[in-house]
Amino acid sequence: MGMTIAEKIIAAAAGVENVKPGDIHTVTLDRMMSNDGTTHLTIDMYNQQLKHPMIADSKKLVFIVDHNVPADNPKTAASHKKMRDFAREHHIDFWEGKGVCHQIMMENYVCPGELIFGADSHTCTYGALGAFGTGVGCTDFLYGMVTGTSWVLVPETVKFNLTGKLRDGVYARDLMLHIIGKIGANGVNYQVMEFTGEGAKTLSVNDRMVLCNLAVEAGAKSAVFEADEIALKWLEERGRKPKHVFQSDPDAVYFNEYTFDLSEVQPIVAKPDFVDDVIPASEACGISIDEAFLGSCNNGRIDEMRVAARLLKGRKVHPHVRFLIVPASNEVYLQALEEGLIETFMESGAIVMNANCSVCWGSCQGVIGENEVLISTGTRNFKGRAGHPSSKVYLGSAATVTASAIKGAIATEDQL
Amino acid sequence: MGMTIAEKIIAAAAGVENVKPGDIHTVTLDRMMSNDGTTHLTIDMYNQQLKHPMIADSKKLVFIVDHNVPADNPKTAASHKKMRDFAREHHIDFWEGKGVCHQIMMENYVCPGELIFGADSHTCTYGALGAFGTGVGCTDFLYGMVTGTSWVLVPETVKFNLTGKLRDGVYARDLMLHIIGKIGANGVNYQVMEFTGEGAKTLSVNDRMVLCNLAVEAGAKSAVFEADEIALKWLEERGRKPKHVFQSDPDAVYFNEYTFDLSEVQPIVAKPDFVDDVIPASEACGISIDEAFLGSCNNGRIDEMRVAARLLKGRKVHPHVRFLIVPASNEVYLQALEEGLIETFMESGAIVMNANCSVCWGSCQGVIGENEVLISTGTRNFKGRAGHPSSKVYLGSAATVTASAIKGAIATEDQL
Repeated sequence: MGMTIAEKIIAAAAGVENVKPGDIHTVTLDRMMSNDGTTHLTIDMYNQQLKHPMIADSKKLVFIVDHNVPADNPKTAASHKKMRDFAREHHIDFWEGKGVCHQIMMENYVCPGELIFGADSHTCTYGALGAFGTGVGCTDFLYGMVTGTSWVLVPETVKFNLTGKLRDGVYARDLMLHIIGKIGANGVNYQVMEFTGEGAKTLSVNDRMVLCNLAVEAGAKSAVFEADEIALKWLEERGRKPKHVFQSDPDAVYFNEYTFDLSEVQPIVAKPDFVDDVIPASEACGISIDEAFLGSCNNGRIDEMRVAARLLKGRKVHPHVRFLIVPASNEVYLQALEEGLIETFMESGAIVMNANCSVCWGSCQGVIGENEVLISTGTRNFKGRAGHPSSKVYLGSAATVTASAIKGAIATEDQL
Repeated sequence: MGMTIAEKIIAAAAGVENVKPGDIHTVTLDRMMSNDGTTHLTIDMYNQQLKHPMIADSKKLVFIVDHNVPADNPKTAASHKKMRDFAREHHIDFWEGKGVCHQIMMENYVCPGELIFGADSHTCTYGALGAFGTGVGCTDFLYGMVTGTSWVLVPETVKFNLTGKLRDGVYARDLMLHIIGKIGANGVNYQVMEFTGEGAKTLSVNDRMVLCNLAVEAGAKSAVFEADEIALKWLEERGRKPKHVFQSDPDAVYFNEYTFDLSEVQPIVAKPDFVDDVIPASEACGISIDEAFLGSCNNGRIDEMRVAARLLKGRKVHPHVRFLIVPASNEVYLQALEEGLIETFMESGAIVMNANCSVCWGSCQGVIGENEVLISTGTRNFKGRAGHPSSKVYLGSAATVTASAIKGAIATEDQL
């Protein structure tokens, strides 16, 4: 019986020929990432609860400070310091203030065929390069850190057959909100979303990251694209080589299969307070907003910066709107600088922040007040996610968010 | 009997011929500025305690959100919203996320001869343009807002006769720390520091802002330079005209007089936890640091950005140091962008933040942890000012801060 990409990655990590959904396997982890959301807890357990604390392979570990950076209060400052000191002591790669963890991982570490644990729910992003990334809690992270291994209950794979091509003015972000809207927030619980088909070939690595990243919002354990020429070229340009380039076998078994025609997707907005509560953006137009956010591990890359700059050029942010623009990494920031995008943002009246999770995380930058309305490219719009429990978060593409920031109310780019 | 500049400004605002120290006068305020430190309290009093709430002249009011911007938690988000809504309702000039209040006031409002109240202790900055700026609490601000007037107990003036010229590698910041070190934190309590002499003529408006801004750290009620050709040219370039250009009379009476030879000043560092506890920077060299901060209303202007970029060009921030660079306003930011300074900062590994009070205020950006050491161009180094009570803050010039960020320990620029 054939295997899917995800199954092949797990089999390779388990050192076995074959795995099938429902199996539990012990796996050797290729890489582990932890950010300032929970690393301090992992370190506390490491220091306080282990009789024989040790790290299996510090070269596989990456610690990234991205959630509350720079530190916004003494508590987060203490967490960061704990992380920083531990990383230094144990020779762990440490990144601070350089960008959102998943963006840094993609730019610097992730390779096709790897099995990666991240102490963050959006670790599924790494599927854009044909890796199996999944989020774990800090206890699982600790076990992996100490032993270099963990266990995986092999998930079912669901095939998402993509056909056609996105129209101008429609983005991968709209596509993924559209898909989540169709299958629901529990649509693929503990399953792998495998994106494939001719439509998948039209998507850049950036687009693939957008899709894989949000997979967890449909309940997915992970998400994956085949590492095709596009992915391998991207990897090669960064001087990295794949671990394995896997393809799903023709006779691989899928739990379910969906087909989405990209040419039929239109700009989409997710309404408060659920990611899967989507409507055509056109139906949300006119809803007054107080803040707009462009950034996050989902949608803060150079492609999105370019979209925003194209729309902002020669225009001003609406005087009643705070528009926070936050590149997902310093690499993105420097590229945006070079292309003059940061200048366009500043001239338009946007607030350009340091590369970090920012408003998406909703705990230290751009927090919104009572009854305020935010439109965001962030990952989630749960109740109170960005501030006061009565505040509202709409999710949309970089284009929709930027157009809304200019108009002062939800708008699509064709309305500018 | 002659009058000093400060006395003449007060006399003009009081509509009298003559004032002398110790007099109390009712004055008409030319301008009033309030930031998110206390404006929400002013608004609460306005709404809840006044029988007949009214605003004397909304054109004289400026509200600026700069302390916790963008909002870092639901409480500050609520304060900002209160400010924003009130400003909109009452047609008050409102700035949010555009820079530090005093920088915005200097760039856009302050004129020589004006008497300005600001609900912030560093309002004395405005003396750089020959205005009388002074900090008030929110109750005094409320009275001024409602009546357009207030009262002033005419302060004594102390003359600071500046001679000579600062040597290369020595900055206005060093000069002012040197002066405060000599006269002490209570050196000019409730007095006006008048900077004059040939040495004063060698200082740019930027330098004068550095001096006037820190005057409050020596206890001053205000500080002032004569609005000479340098100041008037600066003003004219911004399309503004003076209210009055005052000079101190030859027979004006000073409470005291100091002379400082600028050519004798060397790089200075203020030690934790007092601004007046200064030593030559050379004596602090080698003290290991965790964070460096370039910014604030004292030292976040284009001159300082240029110094930092000159030192950072082709160099890297020390891997153990977070170096936060925060332009004092968007005008500064855009200028720095145009000159390629932001690129230099980003390439060096510094963290460039949005224009705001940032680490100087120590409440939402770059907070430091237990026993951590910061070197800062901020205004103050009081115990716990930047984070944990056990953390330490050294104050220095942009050059010293940048050199330290590169070295990982306190250093002066000649050590690079």
